[in-house]
Amino acid sequence: MSHNTFGHLFRVTTWGESHGPALGCVVDGCPPGIPLTEAMIQHFLDQRRPGTSRFVTQRQEPDAVKILSGVFEDDRTLEEFGGPVTTGTPISLLIENTDQRSKDYSEIRDRYRPGHADYSYDAKYGVRDYRGGGRSSARETAARVAAGAVARQVLGDGIVIRGAVVQIGPHAIDRANRDWSITGDNPFWCPDPAMVPVWEQFLDETRKAGSSAGAIVEVQASGVPAGWGAPIYGKLDGELAGAMMSINAVKGVEIGAGFAAAAFSGEQNADEMRAGNESPRFLSNNNGGIAGGISTGQDVIVRIAIKPTSSILNEVKSVTREGEEVDVRTKGRHDPCVGIRAVPVAEAMMACVLADAKLRHRGQTGR
Amino acid sequence: MSHNTFGHLFRVTTWGESHGPALGCVVDGCPPGIPLTEAMIQHFLDQRRPGTSRFVTQRQEPDAVKILSGVFEDDRTLEEFGGPVTTGTPISLLIENTDQRSKDYSEIRDRYRPGHADYSYDAKYGVRDYRGGGRSSARETAARVAAGAVARQVLGDGIVIRGAVVQIGPHAIDRANRDWSITGDNPFWCPDPAMVPVWEQFLDETRKAGSSAGAIVEVQASGVPAGWGAPIYGKLDGELAGAMMSINAVKGVEIGAGFAAAAFSGEQNADEMRAGNESPRFLSNNNGGIAGGISTGQDVIVRIAIKPTSSILNEVKSVTREGEEVDVRTKGRHDPCVGIRAVPVAEAMMACVLADAKLRHRGQTGR
Amino acid sequence: MSHNTFGHLFRVTTWGESHGPALGCVVDGCPPGIPLTEAMIQHFLDQRRPGTSRFVTQRQEPDAVKILSGVFEDDRTLEEFGGPVTTGTPISLLIENTDQRSKDYSEIRDRYRPGHADYSYDAKYGVRDYRGGGRSSARETAARVAAGAVARQVLGDGIVIRGAVVQIGPHAIDRANRDWSITGDNPFWCPDPAMVPVWEQFLDETRKAGSSAGAIVEVQASGVPAGWGAPIYGKLDGELAGAMMSINAVKGVEIGAGFAAAAFSGEQNADEMRAGNESPRFLSNNNGGIAGGISTGQDVIVRIAIKPTSSILNEVKSVTREGEEVDVRTKGRHDPCVGIRAVPVAEAMMACVLADAKLRHRGQTGR
Amino acid sequence: MSHNTFGHLFRVTTWGESHGPALGCVVDGCPPGIPLTEAMIQHFLDQRRPGTSRFVTQRQEPDAVKILSGVFEDDRTLEEFGGPVTTGTPISLLIENTDQRSKDYSEIRDRYRPGHADYSYDAKYGVRDYRGGGRSSARETAARVAAGAVARQVLGDGIVIRGAVVQIGPHAIDRANRDWSITGDNPFWCPDPAMVPVWEQFLDETRKAGSSAGAIVEVQASGVPAGWGAPIYGKLDGELAGAMMSINAVKGVEIGAGFAAAAFSGEQNADEMRAGNESPRFLSNNNGGIAGGISTGQDVIVRIAIKPTSSILNEVKSVTREGEEVDVRTKGRHDPCVGIRAVPVAEAMMACVLADAKLRHRGQTGR
Repeated sequence: MSHNTFGHLFRVTTWGESHGPALGCVVDGCPPGIPLTEAMIQHFLDQRRPGTSRFVTQRQEPDAVKILSGVFEDDRTLEEFGGPVTTGTPISLLIENTDQRSKDYSEIRDRYRPGHADYSYDAKYGVRDYRGGGRSSARETAARVAAGAVARQVLGDGIVIRGAVVQIGPHAIDRANRDWSITGDNPFWCPDPAMVPVWEQFLDETRKAGSSAGAIVEVQASGVPAGWGAPIYGKLDGELAGAMMSINAVKGVEIGAGFAAAAFSGEQNADEMRAGNESPRFLSNNNGGIAGGISTGQDVIVRIAIKPTSSILNEVKSVTREGEEVDVRTKGRHDPCVGIRAVPVAEAMMACVLADAKLRHRGQTGR
Repeated sequence: MSHNTFGHLFRVTTWGESHGPALGCVVDGCPPGIPLTEAMIQHFLDQRRPGTSRFVTQRQEPDAVKILSGVFEDDRTLEEFGGPVTTGTPISLLIENTDQRSKDYSEIRDRYRPGHADYSYDAKYGVRDYRGGGRSSARETAARVAAGAVARQVLGDGIVIRGAVVQIGPHAIDRANRDWSITGDNPFWCPDPAMVPVWEQFLDETRKAGSSAGAIVEVQASGVPAGWGAPIYGKLDGELAGAMMSINAVKGVEIGAGFAAAAFSGEQNADEMRAGNESPRFLSNNNGGIAGGISTGQDVIVRIAIKPTSSILNEVKSVTREGEEVDVRTKGRHDPCVGIRAVPVAEAMMACVLADAKLRHRGQTGR
Repeated sequence: MSHNTFGHLFRVTTWGESHGPALGCVVDGCPPGIPLTEAMIQHFLDQRRPGTSRFVTQRQEPDAVKILSGVFEDDRTLEEFGGPVTTGTPISLLIENTDQRSKDYSEIRDRYRPGHADYSYDAKYGVRDYRGGGRSSARETAARVAAGAVARQVLGDGIVIRGAVVQIGPHAIDRANRDWSITGDNPFWCPDPAMVPVWEQFLDETRKAGSSAGAIVEVQASGVPAGWGAPIYGKLDGELAGAMMSINAVKGVEIGAGFAAAAFSGEQNADEMRAGNESPRFLSNNNGGIAGGISTGQDVIVRIAIKPTSSILNEVKSVTREGEEVDVRTKGRHDPCVGIRAVPVAEAMMACVLADAKLRHRGQTGR
Repeated sequence: MSHNTFGHLFRVTTWGESHGPALGCVVDGCPPGIPLTEAMIQHFLDQRRPGTSRFVTQRQEPDAVKILSGVFEDDRTLEEFGGPVTTGTPISLLIENTDQRSKDYSEIRDRYRPGHADYSYDAKYGVRDYRGGGRSSARETAARVAAGAVARQVLGDGIVIRGAVVQIGPHAIDRANRDWSITGDNPFWCPDPAMVPVWEQFLDETRKAGSSAGAIVEVQASGVPAGWGAPIYGKLDGELAGAMMSINAVKGVEIGAGFAAAAFSGEQNADEMRAGNESPRFLSNNNGGIAGGISTGQDVIVRIAIKPTSSILNEVKSVTREGEEVDVRTKGRHDPCVGIRAVPVAEAMMACVLADAKLRHRGQTGR
């Protein structure tokens, strides 16, 4: 219900602004007895961290997470679980903001940057923390990634979540070349080796031109058992769509074949089944692992469209808070393609949706 | 939270199966003093009603709605409001199922129809009402349309919601030809006069071939003030995405430029602003009327991809409940393109999301 | 969240006014595969039914429940469960109002009855269905009792919920005489045989005097395992308190020793423990089966105070809607002691709270 | 929904254990533009602070609050509001734990203290942070008091919330002597000057005897307009009951006349009305300012029963985690009467309930 809370049984509440002292989240409803350390969370935060290549923002943030509650260690947990475990009480995670450059915010304060939430926040609240975008900054997604790390622990090793960038600007990968094993070996989470140099050149040009580029990210979860999700308004795909669209700059979400399905015939679209070992074997996965809002046991597949970074060096037309016309250039350290750093965020949202679905399914059915 | 409840302050809980005695919904949290009659709701149900052309299912259902609670009329309301008004207490709406043909369901009972929720429901619940698809039938959407009619009354005349089919199978409209005024004059909610005969021929062929077709539906809301929605997980676009993806057969949702934005440059994507009368005037609407999850005052624009009807006459491979391989043909009265009847449903979900956003915005800010 | 929805995973939404065509509820989140028939629900509705003795209202309502959705029967359920079972989808229950006497409501319409919600509803909504109290009528509790019957099925036979009236007016039972087996043998749900004739005489006098009486009801649940509930805001006692206080006319709730604990010393209050078979054995139950918001395995014990029926024949001072001073007498068929018929309602709320706690506990912990 | 979140539109999520590095809360849904400083919150935390007299625990905690997000100050807010204001985004409040004495917890770790949540937590979670009671410690209420300070700002100066202890052990105040102005002048929040020396002597004896005492606290809110709250499950009294019962050690809640109403006649209980200035004038307030779950404009009055502190020096019978019988004495720094420090906590919960009711009422009705 809350504007800043996500989930039902596995619940995440995030807080914090780009240039405040810290940001963080509270993860409530986590099952007890689940191993959890700061290092487990830090691993995923490091994937999202700024400043790691010339294709992402040069802001330097260690994004070091602290666990303030909900995890406990003593001799007994050490013996039984090998270390600290969740206690079932709320887990408070805190990340300090360290690189808040002191600078003059008067420009961003009074001029609405097109594509940003400057105008709409002012229209809603009448007052806002404009420093670095405040609450609407993508820094908030660090808290999502931290929560997603907890969600992965809830899901366990049997469920593997991985994401990739499949398009930057007009350049889409060739799905025939897809190789999940290489996504970590290039600065783009790119699964197609042939596309890496193309994107490299394209983004270098984009950056030098003072512009920015959009992207498409795909996230897939393997090992999700059949039966998670629920009909009607708690559909697994409905919740994924809401979760993914809540990430900054996302403008589209599709499941399985997605928009392509609109041009399919009924035969093309049907995911035919044959007898499997314990459960049916599907001959295709146009449904993206979800039918009627409930998982089928196939891979759950989501793709999201991310618009180009709104902060660009080139001038765009705008107005001030007082309604005067101005031209706006956004100086500073920006991601030329914010879609790249969206990969760990989208993975985290997938993990949170699935962890919540797992607990809700277990609650209702006892399975 | 609930699986069958949508919304936070303006809340809709739907219930009912395809072949049970009735279906309906409870609309809770509706403001008091809003004019509401069965006729106002029936108007929208009639738009979704089956059996109105050869391009939709031939099932005959009057879909007559009854208001069982939450609306009151006496001399005073007659004088003050001209008729019955909401009282602020829950509005119970009931639609009887009248055309539940008695037939042999043994086939659908034991054989999983590809693309349907037969297998996933069984995997989740272990037991299901398979008659006509039970709870996963698109008949459930009648309750959404009824609730949407109430939501429109909450929004008032200043907000106009209208939908159209913009693609059927591979045939997309030419947006240059778009004319909202003709969508009601053809059986497709088509806004492009040149496309009507194309779709007519295409769907006749599809139907005769025993197949089905997908579609893309666009819904637009005009008159939404700037400021509705909320950051992070209560984003207006996030809620729209969840709402739209919860409609049967929807596999993709996009806001504004949507997936096309991935190929845009930052300059192309920026919705530049100039000074307006009371609020800024935008030079484009790639954001679909939403920035940072909050409405900007522009038209709110959503597009959804609807997969082809899964029930087709042609045989597809499947398995039985006991795991034996079978070929399945789905006889009966089906929509060759379920996307057509999705238009009033998508409009209804837009209305419900906006009504809820209106009340939540008012609750938090007092505006 | 919703004003008319109760519960989190096991969720009940009630609707309906005293003099509308019907009232009912939607029970969402019920586990699948649970035997459920109209007769199982009717059994509890009959306990609450008006017109069964001279000590309750003479309104004649059969309160016949219909199941409209969420329950299914075929050969397979017949064989496996012996009859219809829940499917995990929302259960819609409907009770028609049959004894809505056509009468002149002008008096109740314009005059605020002290102790009733007439004035506060008008202050909130500006419009209300005043016939028989509309939504604020105790008839709404029929829907709670119906939902409670479903909740009992979810809890299973191992958990026994039973209620009794332990005080009427100033006359409290002697707890030493308590005998649960006789509560159904007298019209008062009285567990103390010596108190039955006292209450009989007292209520006859009260009724003849045109007055009414308050009462205290106690509800106890046996067989609740240790571990249900949750810390802080989802405490089992917190949820019970909210649930019980939501019943019409209830003005106080206490758990275990309740208000008496204020005068105890720490030693008196401590529920000491000794070694038991599988779990500790408690030497007392001042905590009412709940510690830190979580069940201890002892009986869960709640007591509620119910104010005298506000509708009395004797004149009380009041004002009209327009602010003129009037004296009000409430003619009609009223319960001289509404506390008597509160027993099945309080039992139902206990059942709903426990069913929800069971599913939530299972969801979080897997136990 | 969440176990550690309270409220619907004005939402508070608390986190933290007694002996962890910190505790705190996130307040979400707060209206924008509301003046808020750390000092405003600290004022109420200081009222709850331990170590202020010999009648409360000697633990020394400064309980200094930090605002980490959701509040902003610049030239414009300084000019318009005189200082920092809320921005409408989540307010994160943090209080460090400074007095976590390093000590041997082996005793509390393995022995269940009667009256505490030791056993029930273990039964639920299987693992717990036992140091100082962990999550079940009353230290959690510091976060409630901090949130309550924000809620008071939302309510504004027109609503005055004040609490008092009205009974300690068997010694109740004489309501005829009640004087709200003196509650801050004695260490007991006592409004009856004659009772101060009685309680002083009684508690000194209790403390010296190694025992503890229960109490009754009353909280009253003046200035609440008629119309807040909602029927059925969102009743103002239902929400107050749930909120108050969620405070540590509370075993009973009553509204207005409460349990005494059970012995009243209908005439005694009726809050008669006479014509007032703009709204009716009530001749009594047995309903405690709430009718049908909705505020009447009278003072909202709640009383809660608090059991004696469970931690006592005297030995009580118990068992170990492994089921062996032991005798337990709880050494350490404990409140002899935890009811005293419950006053600011109960006030805070009243404030949170009312702030949430205000926003929800405004959301639904626009008033």
